[in-house]
Amino acid sequence: MKVEREKELEKFTKAEEAYDFQLTLDRIIKYAAREHPTSEVVYRDIVRETYAEALERIQKLANALESLGIEPNCLTRVGTADWNTHRYFEMYYGIPCMGNVMHSMNQLLPPEQLLWTINHAEDRVLIFNKDILPLIEKFSPELKTVERYVICTDDGILPDTKLEPVYEYEELLKGASSKYDFPELDENTPAGLNYTTGTTGLPKGCWFTHRAMVLHAIGEQFNTRWMPEALDQRFTILFVLTPMFHSFAWEVPYIATALGSKLLLDGRHDPVVDMEMVKRERTPIDRPIFICGVSRFLMELIDHPKFKEYKEYFKDAGYIVGGTMFPEGLARRAEEAGLSVASGMGMTETCPGMIGAAYKYYMYDWPDEKKFRYRLRTGYCDTPLCEVKVANSDTLEEVPKDDKSYGEMLFRSVWATMGYFKDPERSKELWRGGWLHGDDLCIWDEDRSIFIVDRTKDVIKSGGEWISTRTLESVISTHPKVQSAAVVGVPHPEWDERPIALIIPKEEYKGKITEEELKEHLVKYAEKGEILKWWIPEKFFFEEIPMTSAGKIDKKVIRADYKDVFA
Amino acid sequence: MKVEREKELEKFTKAEEAYDFQLTLDRIIKYAAREHPTSEVVYRDIVRETYAEALERIQKLANALESLGIEPNCLTRVGTADWNTHRYFEMYYGIPCMGNVMHSMNQLLPPEQLLWTINHAEDRVLIFNKDILPLIEKFSPELKTVERYVICTDDGILPDTKLEPVYEYEELLKGASSKYDFPELDENTPAGLNYTTGTTGLPKGCWFTHRAMVLHAIGEQFNTRWMPEALDQRFTILFVLTPMFHSFAWEVPYIATALGSKLLLDGRHDPVVDMEMVKRERTPIDRPIFICGVSRFLMELIDHPKFKEYKEYFKDAGYIVGGTMFPEGLARRAEEAGLSVASGMGMTETCPGMIGAAYKYYMYDWPDEKKFRYRLRTGYCDTPLCEVKVANSDTLEEVPKDDKSYGEMLFRSVWATMGYFKDPERSKELWRGGWLHGDDLCIWDEDRSIFIVDRTKDVIKSGGEWISTRTLESVISTHPKVQSAAVVGVPHPEWDERPIALIIPKEEYKGKITEEELKEHLVKYAEKGEILKWWIPEKFFFEEIPMTSAGKIDKKVIRADYKDVFA
Repeated sequence: MKVEREKELEKFTKAEEAYDFQLTLDRIIKYAAREHPTSEVVYRDIVRETYAEALERIQKLANALESLGIEPNCLTRVGTADWNTHRYFEMYYGIPCMGNVMHSMNQLLPPEQLLWTINHAEDRVLIFNKDILPLIEKFSPELKTVERYVICTDDGILPDTKLEPVYEYEELLKGASSKYDFPELDENTPAGLNYTTGTTGLPKGCWFTHRAMVLHAIGEQFNTRWMPEALDQRFTILFVLTPMFHSFAWEVPYIATALGSKLLLDGRHDPVVDMEMVKRERTPIDRPIFICGVSRFLMELIDHPKFKEYKEYFKDAGYIVGGTMFPEGLARRAEEAGLSVASGMGMTETCPGMIGAAYKYYMYDWPDEKKFRYRLRTGYCDTPLCEVKVANSDTLEEVPKDDKSYGEMLFRSVWATMGYFKDPERSKELWRGGWLHGDDLCIWDEDRSIFIVDRTKDVIKSGGEWISTRTLESVISTHPKVQSAAVVGVPHPEWDERPIALIIPKEEYKGKITEEELKEHLVKYAEKGEILKWWIPEKFFFEEIPMTSAGKIDKKVIRADYKDVFA
Repeated sequence: MKVEREKELEKFTKAEEAYDFQLTLDRIIKYAAREHPTSEVVYRDIVRETYAEALERIQKLANALESLGIEPNCLTRVGTADWNTHRYFEMYYGIPCMGNVMHSMNQLLPPEQLLWTINHAEDRVLIFNKDILPLIEKFSPELKTVERYVICTDDGILPDTKLEPVYEYEELLKGASSKYDFPELDENTPAGLNYTTGTTGLPKGCWFTHRAMVLHAIGEQFNTRWMPEALDQRFTILFVLTPMFHSFAWEVPYIATALGSKLLLDGRHDPVVDMEMVKRERTPIDRPIFICGVSRFLMELIDHPKFKEYKEYFKDAGYIVGGTMFPEGLARRAEEAGLSVASGMGMTETCPGMIGAAYKYYMYDWPDEKKFRYRLRTGYCDTPLCEVKVANSDTLEEVPKDDKSYGEMLFRSVWATMGYFKDPERSKELWRGGWLHGDDLCIWDEDRSIFIVDRTKDVIKSGGEWISTRTLESVISTHPKVQSAAVVGVPHPEWDERPIALIIPKEEYKGKITEEELKEHLVKYAEKGEILKWWIPEKFFFEEIPMTSAGKIDKKVIRADYKDVFA
């Protein structure tokens, strides 16, 4: 019998008035304001607002933007750059919920790149912290599309500036009504735009729909399955240290709202502020708390001279370190300090959740050391809403799960960017073969747990073989005198490239650490088989380590600075 | 400046090869088979299959259905009726993932209604347990669309039957290839059809898309936030006692797969089998386990003479009781037995998740007794993917949150049925005013925690006022001699209706319980203000309580049986 599908489909009656529930961001903030109205967004010791109050201010912001000529449902880009504040939280909802697009500007980009992104995004209004006013003023003559400026201040006083027309954020909201009917948007409406810092060429604009951002906020709530009993998923406090202009702060502001959790925001990152906030906000002292940040922030926290005064407030705090790098030495120090740590990894292109060190059921029974080492690996893809594989970049075939065959991480998901803003060529390159291409060299094991050996651009090619800078850094970090380490490959006349290391000793060992003892330390790891002997860096430098805006080691800069050491 | 939205939209480049990730059910089983391949589906002590094996058998089933003339992507309905088995689990995926629609037939419906649903759904193949073979044989002459029959047996032997053509499930799979490429479906494709038992008129066919079912499986994972530290959301074992033909077993089979959890299935419900399974499968003995069932199943478990032998295996087990009824006495006995219980509520129309007794952050600090009483209320809507309000049925305006103003529960969500299969008229009625209308009389409080006073059809109208049968049952259930109670209103010459109660005493009190002592018990509650004095039932009967197929008290039958007691 030949079935006519269309005729069958008609039998599935849809009531005319049946509500077509779209996955739009306003659902999340309205849910929080409705079901968790007294949960708070806390900005340092400066402002605390409940979700109910936040929703009112978000609606004021939408009205204020309309008063600045930004019509609803027009996909107009609004450039935003604030520290981690309640104001930025309001922009996260106010701009997309009215049907426009939040361009979160990376304010620590090289100025000429930041300027370029504003022009490329065609931002019509800029909302930014007064700390970058001098910068915006400097290049305002070159801004081609910006019509109005809004400056964020804590004191509510508009600074002196030659920009115009210009407004102060708080002042602007004061004059606006707190009633605003968000338009009923299709969930496929673009909501957010975020440029990757990009290692070569100009920044690339990753964009995301409401659907992508809502599903990411819902789907990423599972990435804490490694946590000890006392914390687990019912965390009631979320603390995001990742800058809110970077990869949408991993969407933690949306996740917190979707859970009705208290959200802590520390302004411009400062470990002393963080310690004070945890002490003040974690009441009772065993209230579940979950902190998100990069490894540098974790190091600045637990290695801080004041940390011992605050240690009790961090007991059993969950801490997820995002990015490709979680040095073993740091992780051990953090666990000794009472935190529960794990690694996760994503890209701006992936909203950013890709993989995380969640446990599989049989891992609960593993010995503690094995569990700990697993949590340092970057992990697996813990949700049916994504698919991840480690594969050959060209054939797209999976590499063996033997923890030694190299491949690239390939991704597809309901929340991946579909391309780069106004950039068909690089969009095509990103999605070749129907998979989103990561830029990391990876291995994976039988558990499908992925270990990121190195960024493709960072791995050292020495004598025709590969050396993982990430593994070297992790092993060096376990030396008792080392606070942190960076390894890069630099040109070498005989071996193409050879590794060198930059070392920051712990405070008490400054000037009391030698190249020899580090080499001895590495020889021991080579004898254990964790690295190869010829991987050991040729030279060690006891120097500052340059960092990117996102808090990662800036290897591009190191490579440039040291390019002639073997010349 | 007038913005042209279409022109703006074009700037958001989509790579041609960008993968359009749809929310389809195959995502879930493929995820489980990929990331949790050794997690198991366990059917009694008869079969255990891993998710990897399950996926192979699911693909065999799809091939087998093709060999029976069911083409892919045709929305053909396949009628299914098995006990809770691994086979039913396979049908949950095999039928919708090939682009057809699983009609889960309620095999305990009155036969003439079951027959009607098969003809109404236009099922072309029926897959059913041999236990209902006599029934299917009996009405096979009246089946208008069924072309083939598949019988499920544990022994793999086709029973004698005059049906034809007829196949045995296991035999059919044996001949099929385990390779099948599921078509890439649009997520809005219908996937499941389930008829409500319906209190008046003919059954109504609620249907759900892949999108609805996937989002329900993801979104409903949060409904366990009340659970103690030791369990929480990282449960690794899920045990669904709800029959799989009823409201898709609350989607627990999908939820388990989406979590990679072990799934326990007990065949035809039997408390001794359940106890044996928990003892055998919960290893180590403190492995998190989460059980889903109606209150009757919980009662049969903890009141079972053998329960004390198994009690240790149920320590800290989570147990969610679905439906409008969770009597306080039963809940206390369950907690005393070491389980952690809470209530939740849904309708077939809502896939079925609506509300559950999850905690809000401030509730963690409540005293234990207050927490316990909160968990008996049906709860609130704990996800941004739904919206629930208690409102006037006509004006749709919210009633005051004072815990005494009556209203109807109104719902909208990404997973609600959009209407009834081939039934525009009742679809329209269901969705009047753009909200899905529940059929319960509710109150709610400041926490937005909803208490279901009664089914609209069960509430007693006496002397112009309302009496909640549910509250009476709950209060009666706290009497130490009572195992369970049912209250209904029956016609009364003077008061329109008056309540009567049916009582099942605990085993040891059979014949040793009197109407007088129950009335005295109720008077005490009236003095405390928990009920009103004139609510106390006129008459008590110590008789069996008739149950519906879904394990709920069948009040329609009681009302019919006792309609003349005051005549």
